[in-house]
Order: sequence, then structure tokens, then C-alpha cells
Amino acid sequence: MTVTATTARERMLLAKDASRSIGLLSDVEKADALRAIADAIDAAVTEIVAANAEDLERGRADGLTEGLQDRLRLDASRVGSLASAVRDVADLPDPVGRVLDERTLPGGVHLQKVSVPFGVVGSIYEARPNVTVDIAALALRSGNAVVLRGGTAAQSSNAELVRVMRGALAGRGIDPEAIQTVDDFGRDGARELMQARGLVDVLVPRGSAQLIETVVTESSVPVIETGAGIVHIVIDSTAPLEWARDIVVNAKVQRPSVCNAVETVLVLRDAADRLVPPVVEALQDAGVTVHGDQATQALAHDVVPATDADWAIEHMSLDVSVRVVDDLDAALDHIRTYSTQHTESIVTADEARAERFLAEVDSAVVMANASTRFTDGGEFGFGAEVGISTQKLHARGPMGLPELTSTKWLARGAGQIRR
Amino acid sequence: MTVTATTARERMLLAKDASRSIGLLSDVEKADALRAIADAIDAAVTEIVAANAEDLERGRADGLTEGLQDRLRLDASRVGSLASAVRDVADLPDPVGRVLDERTLPGGVHLQKVSVPFGVVGSIYEARPNVTVDIAALALRSGNAVVLRGGTAAQSSNAELVRVMRGALAGRGIDPEAIQTVDDFGRDGARELMQARGLVDVLVPRGSAQLIETVVTESSVPVIETGAGIVHIVIDSTAPLEWARDIVVNAKVQRPSVCNAVETVLVLRDAADRLVPPVVEALQDAGVTVHGDQATQALAHDVVPATDADWAIEHMSLDVSVRVVDDLDAALDHIRTYSTQHTESIVTADEARAERFLAEVDSAVVMANASTRFTDGGEFGFGAEVGISTQKLHARGPMGLPELTSTKWLARGAGQIRR
Repeated sequence: MTVTATTARERMLLAKDASRSIGLLSDVEKADALRAIADAIDAAVTEIVAANAEDLERGRADGLTEGLQDRLRLDASRVGSLASAVRDVADLPDPVGRVLDERTLPGGVHLQKVSVPFGVVGSIYEARPNVTVDIAALALRSGNAVVLRGGTAAQSSNAELVRVMRGALAGRGIDPEAIQTVDDFGRDGARELMQARGLVDVLVPRGSAQLIETVVTESSVPVIETGAGIVHIVIDSTAPLEWARDIVVNAKVQRPSVCNAVETVLVLRDAADRLVPPVVEALQDAGVTVHGDQATQALAHDVVPATDADWAIEHMSLDVSVRVVDDLDAALDHIRTYSTQHTESIVTADEARAERFLAEVDSAVVMANASTRFTDGGEFGFGAEVGISTQKLHARGPMGLPELTSTKWLARGAGQIRR
Repeated sequence: MTVTATTARERMLLAKDASRSIGLLSDVEKADALRAIADAIDAAVTEIVAANAEDLERGRADGLTEGLQDRLRLDASRVGSLASAVRDVADLPDPVGRVLDERTLPGGVHLQKVSVPFGVVGSIYEARPNVTVDIAALALRSGNAVVLRGGTAAQSSNAELVRVMRGALAGRGIDPEAIQTVDDFGRDGARELMQARGLVDVLVPRGSAQLIETVVTESSVPVIETGAGIVHIVIDSTAPLEWARDIVVNAKVQRPSVCNAVETVLVLRDAADRLVPPVVEALQDAGVTVHGDQATQALAHDVVPATDADWAIEHMSLDVSVRVVDDLDAALDHIRTYSTQHTESIVTADEARAERFLAEVDSAVVMANASTRFTDGGEFGFGAEVGISTQKLHARGPMGLPELTSTKWLARGAGQIRR
């Protein structure tokens, strides 16, 4: 269904209005709506790929890198994956209507704290058309309307996907205004979305650290920050070689471009002779470039000298920084200075040290003897990936559908007044 | 203990540093620290009243109204109440360390989601010295350091209270830098606090709608909004007279200056003849000035004509607005337009209508047949009043100590890696 409202504000008003009926849909109605969207996406594969081709052509003309073109590209198989991801979200349990607390006041008023939709969820993200579908599905499954603002480079793809999704809602008698885009207003669209306090209830930026920083700084709408991961693994004096090697290699190599991949390995000095050589060698065997401090360089071959800047970098590639530190205190100091409070892990055979690390490190997920790659909604059993929150308000760590809901208190009385 | 750091930023850095040791204190240590603060406040009553006298004198010279002077005033009895409120907070259960979720992943990694302190809680508030002690006690009880910014008019009182509280912490071997004030930097102090992203984890403004609006708009630190209450009561066609009269009078008269007091009564047209006259009369008998629309004026005596502006006002006084509306839809429309999403209540004998109201009204607390004055941390059984959140993120409605905590995931493994 075509978008007709002509200003960003008008569209956000329509979304807010639609959020009332969307919020009252039953579990089954929401799941069916998502399945209708998935079917509509499958049916419109030709149109979606054609719209995407326009974006790709413009991207090539504008000199978009190969990597960015690949993020932007939708072929028939990727369109099929989009639809199937929507069906997975449809299968998740309804996060709305859970009774989270319940009590009866002395005078007899009965209180229930129940989960409710936020109302309108906004999202600002980059030129990845899959996010358009992903966020819309997650928002609708949790009873929210959604206002989308994707990267300009994906504008034609997003417009087509939004049109298809709106059509699917209309086809099921659901208000299509629940899905809005402000892509066509360029920077103004993003700005209006960030200032739409009272119309948009929460804003979820997805993308680079810079995009998130901009949204956090400029938005007056409350933001759920899904941040970058400068992730650390500490190798304690007592760390078993096998655990240290396996965990570090897995945390770096299994998927280097994601936020839960390790960036810095801190080895306690009295374990350095024993563990730096085999861990570095295992990393190098797996194709990783190791950037090390002087102590690391002295203990292993082919180590690129690390500079202070290396400790503050999220490589997103097969690069890792290794530093030898005096003791656990020094490791904790390093983490406090450089961590983005996403995930940190210690490898140790000493339970007291593990517990100290778990208690003192102030990150969304703190691990002992496990790969940092486990920080993930899917791995945690949430069934969907809303993002990984690195803020402390509302949600922290991997977010599932319940994190896209708020709460309200229902009070049922029989004429009670306060004495 | 005297404040020595000389810039607002230095003090916030000290608070952040102190938050590490404060966050690791045990339940008993935190409770004992609060009791020491209460004792120290009792012991310093002379100095506190003397400092307050300076503020009062300056206030009178500056032409502070009687009402504001009263809010500012601390006599021996009020100082005693401050200390006793701190003891009440000490007696509350520790909100830190609760296990909120727990699961074992297929590979054997054990996950726990536990409540942890935010770290540093900031608060910006008006010239009420009691808030200085109140917020500091709540923050410390939940394992947080605190940075305070009170109204300039209470500067001497606050400085003395902060000195006394810091001394009490130092006397128990706890880092006194956990309590900081930036009062002496005037507007710059507030501005630096609002921009202290990374140093301050959450900001809780307390005070007028205007103060809260400023903080929400200007802060890059996440804010918990404790908002104004334009609170509605709907009187349904089926409302029993006694319930309608008792609830409306209680909601307005029991304490008119607070946010959960009713501001607007919406009477359904087919109940107006029966209920407007007795409800208005009961309000007037209780000393309330009734501002009514034309229908209300036609049905009752001594009704002040209401203007559109009346629907958007939080009176904070013995004034109430009354409007006759066509039906429940019209009442819901009115609420959507004017409510601050704090508390709304319906008086009805019709359960289906009650349930519709509970489902459709989007406020922190939605009631059927109960006085809106029940929206209160104390009444809800939380034992302490952190404020009443009117936002949807993190906390909504009356907040207790648990709302001053965040969470983190602890993962305990034995060398597991992700496949």
C-alpha cells in the first residue's frame, strides 16, 4: 500500500494513531499478520529485486565500495531469507500481556503489572534493506507501530519493502499506517524522527558506532543504545592452555565482523611465557594478524607492534591486540579504560578469581571460561535478535521481543479511597 | 567531610571511581552506612538548621514566596524526619544481587541475569533540601554513587547536608566521594551533569514540569522522567453515586498538591443529570472550586466556566475541571489529548467497560473504581518513593529501589566455544 502522507510529522502521527489498534491485536492476529507479510515478500520478489537493482546502480555510480554494495544487495535467495526470518518472528511467543507483578493492597485494590507495547518504535539504520523488514516484524510482533529511517543508498529497496508490508497488513484488515518510512525526507526525516518526543516512544539505532553516537546525542526520544563491542578476554595465571587457546581463537575467528568478537587479549604476566606463544601461534594459524605489546613481541613471532590506539579499536576483522599485564588488577584497569561494556571473559582455573572478575567487571555480559561469541539473542535462547544493548537503562545485553515492551499497572477496586 | 575537588567534572570522576567500591558493599554494610548517615544528621541538627537559616535569609532578601520559603525550611523537627526517613530506607531489602533470570545453554554454559547498581546516579531538583538526603539515601542503598544538583536557593543547606553525609561514610571506612554535589557551579554544574555521558549512568530530575522538560531535552545522559500528573477520572453511565462521589472527592481533596491528585472529571452524558449535581456539591462542600463546561454549569451551582486551557492544567490546588462527554469514546479521546500518562481511573459498575478502559488507556497506572491517590510507592508497598515514572523505558509508574538498579548477565562455563 502506497504511502500518502506528505510530511514526516504526518506519517508519525498516523503511526501513533495506528499504534492504538495494533496494540490491541491478539497474539494470533499479530502472528497471522507477520505470516501475511512473509507471503507478500515472497510474492513480490521480482519487484523487490528490481527496486534493489536501482539502488545498486545508483550505488555503483556513486562509487559505493564492494563491501557496502554487498550489504545492500537483495537477490531472490536473500529475499527468501527475509520472508523466512519474518515467519520465525511470527512463531515467537507474544511478549504483550504477561503479568510481571501482582499484589492486593490492604484495602482490597488488586494490582497487576502487565507488559504492554511501547506504542511507536522508531529505528535509524544504515543501507541494509534486511533491517527494514527485521525491525518492522519485531515491532509488530510486540504490538508496536514502527517508523523506519534507513540509509539513503537503500531508499528504493526500502520503499518497495514498506509498500509490500503495508499491503499485507491492509489485506488482513490491519491499519497499514502502522508501518511508516521517513526515508524520502533525507536528513530532515532522521532529524524529525529524533525530535518526535510524544509521537515516537523509543528509538533503536542500528549500525556503526558513529551513527549510534549521533542518535544518542541528538535524540530527545528515549534511545536504546546497541553499541560497539571492544571485547576483552583475560588469560589468568591459572588458565588451562586448551581453554585459553580454544576460547580466544573461537572468539576472534568464528565471525570476526560482529560486535561479540574479541578485540583485545590480556595475558597475566606470570602466565605469559607459558601461554602467549601457543595462543598467538593458534591465532596466526587461523589467519589472524596479532598486534602485540613489547612483551608479546618478545615471546612470539610475526607480531605487529601494537600502539595505544590499538586498545581502543573495534577491528571487525581478523586482527587482535594482545597485551601482557602485571596482574588481575591491571587487567581490570585496562578493561575499565577501553571496554565498551559489551562482553568480557576471563579464562582461569581459579574460582575465586573468576568470581571476582564476574563481580567487578561492569559490562552487559561478563563470562568465565566461555567464548564471548555466546553474547547473542539466538544463543541465549531469545529466538530473535533485537540487538545487544550496551546501556544500563531498560535493557542490557542481548534483547529479545520482551525488551520491545513497556509495562503498565492495572488497578481494580470496588470504590476504595486512600485514608 | 569537606568537598575538595574543584571542578564539576573532577567530582563526577571521583563519584565514578567511588561507585566501584560502593557497588561491592554488602547488604549489611549499605544499611549500616545509611544508619550512620541518619545518626550524623541527628547529631548535626544545630549546624544544619543554621545553614538553612542562611538560605532562608537570602531567600527573604531575594523575595522568595512564603510557599517556597516553607519548602526550603528545615527546623529541628524536619531534620529529625529526614534522619528517620534515611533509617526507613536502610530497613528496605537490598535491591542488588537478585537473580532475575537463569538458564543453562545447550553446551553447558550457565547464565544468570542479576541486578547490579547503575554506578552513578545524578539528580537535578529544586530548592527542597530534603531531596538531597532522600536521593542520596536511595542511591546508596541500591549501591550507587550520587551526584546532586539542587536548587541554588538551598545551597547552604545542601552543602551542610552533603558534608554531614560524607563524614558519616568516611567514619565507617566507606569512600565519601560516593556523595558529590555540583551546586556551587550554578547553571554550569547542571549543564555538565546533563552532559556527563560515560560518567553518570542515569539522571533523575525531580520537580516542576518545566525543570523535567529541560533535563529531558538537554541531557545526553539517560533520564528517568518523573512527570507531572494531569490525572483524569471518568464517571461512567453505570457509576454508583457513592463510589463516584467518594473517589472524586478523595482524589482531589486528600492532598491536592501532589501529582496523583485528580485534575479533570469526565462525566458520560447519560449519567450527567444523576451524578454531576451531587459530585459537584460534594467537591464544593470540601472546599474545591469546580471549573465546568456548559453542561456542568447548567446542572450545578457556583461552577466557574471552564476554558480549553483548563483541560491542560495541573492545578496542584483545590481546583478541579469537570466536563460532560458524549460517551466512553469521547472520554478516551479527551484523555489521549490531555493526559500526561500518569494515572487515569474509571468509576463504573459495568465490568466490560472497566476492562475496555484498563486495556485502552495508555498511562502508567490505569484504575477501575479506585482513587487515583493510590498511585504511590508507599501505597504500592515499595517502602520508598523514588518518584513516579511517566516514561515507558526502564520503569513506569511508582518506582521503588529496584528501579535504581540495572542488570548484567553472568556466564559461567568450562571452556565452551560457539560452534
